Amino acid sequence: MTKPKGERRGLVLVYTGDGKGKTTAALGLVLRALGRGFRPRIFQFMKHERAAFGEHRALEKLGVPIEGLGDGFSWRSRDLEKSAELARAGWRRAAEAVASGDWDLVVLDEIMYPLAFGWIDLDEVLEVLRERPQNVHVVLTGRGAPEALVEYADTVTEMKKVKHAYDAGIPAQKGMEH
Amino acid sequence: MTKPKGERRGLVLVYTGDGKGKTTAALGLVLRALGRGFRPRIFQFMKHERAAFGEHRALEKLGVPIEGLGDGFSWRSRDLEKSAELARAGWRRAAEAVASGDWDLVVLDEIMYPLAFGWIDLDEVLEVLRERPQNVHVVLTGRGAPEALVEYADTVTEMKKVKHAYDAGIPAQKGMEH
Repeated sequence: MTKPKGERRGLVLVYTGDGKGKTTAALGLVLRALGRGFRPRIFQFMKHERAAFGEHRALEKLGVPIEGLGDGFSWRSRDLEKSAELARAGWRRAAEAVASGDWDLVVLDEIMYPLAFGWIDLDEVLEVLRERPQNVHVVLTGRGAPEALVEYADTVTEMKKVKHAYDAGIPAQKGMEH
Repeated sequence: MTKPKGERRGLVLVYTGDGKGKTTAALGLVLRALGRGFRPRIFQFMKHERAAFGEHRALEKLGVPIEGLGDGFSWRSRDLEKSAELARAGWRRAAEAVASGDWDLVVLDEIMYPLAFGWIDLDEVLEVLRERPQNVHVVLTGRGAPEALVEYADTVTEMKKVKHAYDAGIPAQKGMEH
């Protein structure tokens, strides 16, 4: 596989694993990129288009586009064909954003779910990554990153759950987990 | 060990391990907290007080205090006593911020280093965490989180390096890693 060359070059980063911090780490990268004057853009495959968690409010203020592409909890949906269609339409939008070169950093949050369900095609995702403009960074998050994606990516971190507040009966805290 | 009770309660989160994304995930939490109107504050034990990476520039714009408490690469320093003193003075400032209740979220970035070096005392850190006001969230990052801290924390994630761009000879990219 060929990769973009040059001193400033876009990286492909993967945050995977069953622990907390995958989406959050992607948000941190967005903040860092903003501080350097980069233009980040975020697509969230498993969030509803009208999601308004803490990060959405903050990013709106910062002028960072963040788009929910799903219908909320798609994996529990009784209308899987609708979920699949939403994911495919969302992927087309995200792929265009990566290919356009208009964005220095594109976050594909929770893209591993639609990949695992076969709603979007891994080979197509890899092709969009390979063909992207040299300077474009792409971050992909979600449990169960496919082997071929791990192989292609520049940096891969597995967020491993050591322990989680939920397991001790503590409900999700606003501002920390949503 | 007693923990604060009540519906809204501060969590202790630990991001540890040798992978990328620990500090970045903490920054993402800051962004999320901001979106909920919380007041976050960041202490960075291994960053120089005049550090100006991407995150510093972005956080300054957002009005989030971020303080470097170290002298840069302290672990390579030839004046370890000076590094130890800086860490201890920094810890006193951070401990006051946690205890004050003036901040909803306090990030103790890379605190595992001074803990490992014995520059600051683990029991003292645990005591400050235990005694903190009920609503205060604290995030601690760095490799090699001590067992007693993992035990006390509500949520612990190990960021495991699967692969890293450095290893393939790709230099750190501005806006992504600093």
